[in-house]
Amino acid sequence: MTQTPRQMKLGAFLMATGHHVAAWRHPEVPANAGLDFGHYKQLARIAEAAKFDALFVADSVAAAEGDIASRMARSDHFEPLTLLSALSAVTERIGLIATATTSYNEPYHVARKFASLDHLSSGRAGWNLVTSDAAAEALNFGRTEHISHAERYARAREFHQVVTGLWDSWEDDAFTRDKASGQYYDPAKLHVLNHQGEHFKVRGPLNVARSPQGRPVIVQAGSSQTGLELAAQTAEVVFTAQTSLARAQAFYADLKGRLARFGRPADALKIMPGVFVVVGRSESEAREKHEAFQDLVEPQVGVALLGRMLGNFDLSGYPLDGPLPELPLTDSGQQSRQKLLTELAGQENLTLAQLGRRIAGGRGHYSLVGTPTQIADELQAWFEQGAADGFNVLVPHLPGGLEDFATHVVPELQRRGLYRTEYQGSTLREHLGLERPTNRFSQPL
Amino acid sequence: MTQTPRQMKLGAFLMATGHHVAAWRHPEVPANAGLDFGHYKQLARIAEAAKFDALFVADSVAAAEGDIASRMARSDHFEPLTLLSALSAVTERIGLIATATTSYNEPYHVARKFASLDHLSSGRAGWNLVTSDAAAEALNFGRTEHISHAERYARAREFHQVVTGLWDSWEDDAFTRDKASGQYYDPAKLHVLNHQGEHFKVRGPLNVARSPQGRPVIVQAGSSQTGLELAAQTAEVVFTAQTSLARAQAFYADLKGRLARFGRPADALKIMPGVFVVVGRSESEAREKHEAFQDLVEPQVGVALLGRMLGNFDLSGYPLDGPLPELPLTDSGQQSRQKLLTELAGQENLTLAQLGRRIAGGRGHYSLVGTPTQIADELQAWFEQGAADGFNVLVPHLPGGLEDFATHVVPELQRRGLYRTEYQGSTLREHLGLERPTNRFSQPL
Repeated sequence: MTQTPRQMKLGAFLMATGHHVAAWRHPEVPANAGLDFGHYKQLARIAEAAKFDALFVADSVAAAEGDIASRMARSDHFEPLTLLSALSAVTERIGLIATATTSYNEPYHVARKFASLDHLSSGRAGWNLVTSDAAAEALNFGRTEHISHAERYARAREFHQVVTGLWDSWEDDAFTRDKASGQYYDPAKLHVLNHQGEHFKVRGPLNVARSPQGRPVIVQAGSSQTGLELAAQTAEVVFTAQTSLARAQAFYADLKGRLARFGRPADALKIMPGVFVVVGRSESEAREKHEAFQDLVEPQVGVALLGRMLGNFDLSGYPLDGPLPELPLTDSGQQSRQKLLTELAGQENLTLAQLGRRIAGGRGHYSLVGTPTQIADELQAWFEQGAADGFNVLVPHLPGGLEDFATHVVPELQRRGLYRTEYQGSTLREHLGLERPTNRFSQPL
Repeated sequence: MTQTPRQMKLGAFLMATGHHVAAWRHPEVPANAGLDFGHYKQLARIAEAAKFDALFVADSVAAAEGDIASRMARSDHFEPLTLLSALSAVTERIGLIATATTSYNEPYHVARKFASLDHLSSGRAGWNLVTSDAAAEALNFGRTEHISHAERYARAREFHQVVTGLWDSWEDDAFTRDKASGQYYDPAKLHVLNHQGEHFKVRGPLNVARSPQGRPVIVQAGSSQTGLELAAQTAEVVFTAQTSLARAQAFYADLKGRLARFGRPADALKIMPGVFVVVGRSESEAREKHEAFQDLVEPQVGVALLGRMLGNFDLSGYPLDGPLPELPLTDSGQQSRQKLLTELAGQENLTLAQLGRRIAGGRGHYSLVGTPTQIADELQAWFEQGAADGFNVLVPHLPGGLEDFATHVVPELQRRGLYRTEYQGSTLREHLGLERPTNRFSQPL
C-alpha cells in the first residue's frame, strides 16, 4: 500500500466584501456582499472547484456602530448557521465551518443546529468554538459587562462537554426504523446525558440522530494559555495569526506538544495559520493591486480597526501621526496580538496611522503579496518546516481575491504535489484526515 | 381597476414522514425522512409548483423518549431554521415559516436568525412564535420544571417586543454604501433599541440590515385566552385546530373581533385552521387509503399521542378498552383541546384505544377524507362562511399525501377561482396580502 504524501489543508475565510477594511470601496467589489446570497454562492463554488477543505465564517453577536463603524462594511451580514445551511444545499463536498460563541448561547441549541447542519450537508459541518470578549455583545444578552477571561473559558470548557455529550445521545445504529415490527429506534441505544455542572444543567437527549461525522469538527482560535490548553484538549483544527515562520514554528511545536498530556496524538489537531494573500502575475503587479486597496483606507478607519484588534480600545483620541500609545493589558485574550503590534510599530518606527494602514488587510495575519510561485514557496516552507498543517486563506477582496488564489496559487500547489487535485472523501473529517469519533456510550465488542 | 377576488391561503405543514403517527411504517413512505434533505427538497418543490403560500415546520426542543416514543418517528429531525435556510437556496417563491420558542431562547439570536433567513430568501421568512409547555424542554435549559402559563406568555410578549424592535434597528435606506465618500451607512438611520424590561435587557442594534419584508411574518397558534390576546395584538397569521364549521366560525369571529382594540384592521391577521386531508379518486378509495394508515397504529402508540395532545399526560396506566379518564386541568394551554376530545369520546362512546386511533392522523384538526370535489367543497364552505382565510394543510404521509393534494385538490380550487394559478408577488407578505410594516423609528415626511 502506498502512503499518501502529506498534503496541506486549505480553508477559505469568507468575509463579505473581503478582509481588506477598504475592500468594499473598490470598483470590482459588490458593496452589498454581506447580505447577497448569490455572492456567497459564487464564493462557495469557486472554493469548491479549487478543492478547498472548508469555508469558514467568523461571527460576532453585536453590530459595529459609531462614526467610524459607519465607514466600514461590518454591520450587516448573514448569521453564519443560516448562511452555511443555505450553502449546504448548493455545494457537494466542501466543509462548512461556522462560528458560534459559548458565552451567550445555550449548549442544547448549538449542539442541535450543528448536528442539523451536519445532516443537511451529509457530514460537512464544523463548529468554530469561541468565547465573546466584546462588551457590546454582553449588552445584547442581559449583561452589563462581558464575562471575565477565566470565567468565559471555564464556561466554554463545560459548554464543549455538554455539546459533544449531546451529539452522542444516540448510537450510530440507534434508529432501526423497522416497519414490520414497529420499532423506530432501539431504546437501549439512546443515552441521556444528564449533565449537572457549574454553568449548565442539561438533561438531553438531543432530538437529532448522531450525525454523519459522529460529531461536527471542533475548530478553535484562542491564543491565550487557557485557550491553548482548551484547544490541546478539545480542538481538531486551530486557526491562528502568526507573523513569521519562526513564530509559527514555535506556536506549532508548543500546541502540538500539549496534546500528549490529554492522550491525543499530534495529528488529531490540524494547525492552520491565517495567511493574507494578494496574487499578481509579477511581484510589482501584486504590490500595485495591494496598494489600490491601501489607498482607499481612511486613516481614522485603519486606526479604529487597530484599536479593535488590540482589544476593543478607542484610539480616536490619539494623534494619527504620533506613536502607538502605551495600552493597559486587557482581559480580552488579545495580549499576544498587542505585544506583536507594539513590537512591529517600535521596530519600524510607525505612526498610529501607518500601523493602522499596515493591518488594514491581513489584520495581524501573515501577509503574502507576490506571484503564485512566491506565494507557493512561502506556504510550502511553512508547511514543510513544522509551522503549519495548512492555511486559512484571507484575501483582500471578494470574489476577485479568491478567484486569483484558486486560479493561480492552487494549481501551483497541486503541481508541487502539496495539494489535492480531487476530493478523496466526502466529509470534512475525511478532507482533514481526522478520525470519526467513537460514541462515548458505545460498548466495545 | 378591477378588484382581485379574495382567494384562500395555503400552508404546507411538513412533518418528516407525515402527520399520521403510523405513516413511517407505510411501504410508500421513506422511514428516514426526518433527516433526509432530499426528501424535504422534494416536498418544497411540490408545494411551490402548487403555489402554496408557505412551508411550515413545527418544533420542540426536546427528544421524545421511552418505549412508546421508540415506536414513533418523532425523535430525529432537522432543526427548523437550518432546514428552512437550506430550502431557501433551492426554492424561489414559497414562504418559509419556522417555529422557535420564546421560552428557552434569547431574542437577539431569534431576531438575527430570522432576519438572516429573510435576506437569504429575498423576503420569504415567517416566525411561528410559540411558548414551551413540556417539562422535557425545560430540563434541557437548566430548569427543573417548565415555566407557568402566565409567566411564559408574559415572557413571549416581551420577547416579541424585543425581536420586532431589533428588526427595526436600521431604517430601510440606512446602508448607503457610497464608495466615493466612504460612507457605508448613515449613522442617523441606525437606532439603538436599549430595551430594559422584566425578562430581557437587550441593547441592540441588530447586526443585520432591515430585512426585505421589513419584518418576517409573525405566526402564532395559541388558543388560550392569553394566547388569543397576544395573537390579536401581534400575530399576522394564526394556525388553529377547529373540529367543525360552527366552532371555526366562532373562533374566527372571536379572534378577528379582538383586533380593533389594538388598532388593527381585521385583515391584518389571517386565520388558517389546520385541515387533515386524505384524497381519493372516489370516497371509498380515500377511506381505504386512510384505513391503510389506521391499521398500522399500535393502540398504545395512539393512546400515548393522545396523552401528549391532552397536555403531556401519561395514559399508559389506563385500560385500552376503558373510557378516557377524568384528567386534571393543566397549566399547559391545552384546555380547549382537552374539552373537545372529552366531548368527542363521550358523544361517540369511544374507548381510550379508539380515541387514540381517531386522532392518529389529524390530531384534533378537522379531517377531510374524500374526493377532490368533496374536499374543495368543504374548504370553500369554511372560506366563504367566515371560518377561515386559508388552511394549513396536513397530510397523512409524505411525499405522497402532499402530491395528492397538489395534483388533485389545488387544481379544483383553482378552477373555482379560489386559489392563485401563479404567484403574484415575491415575498411571503405579498402572497398573504399583508402590508410591509413601517420602521417604528422612521420619521413621517
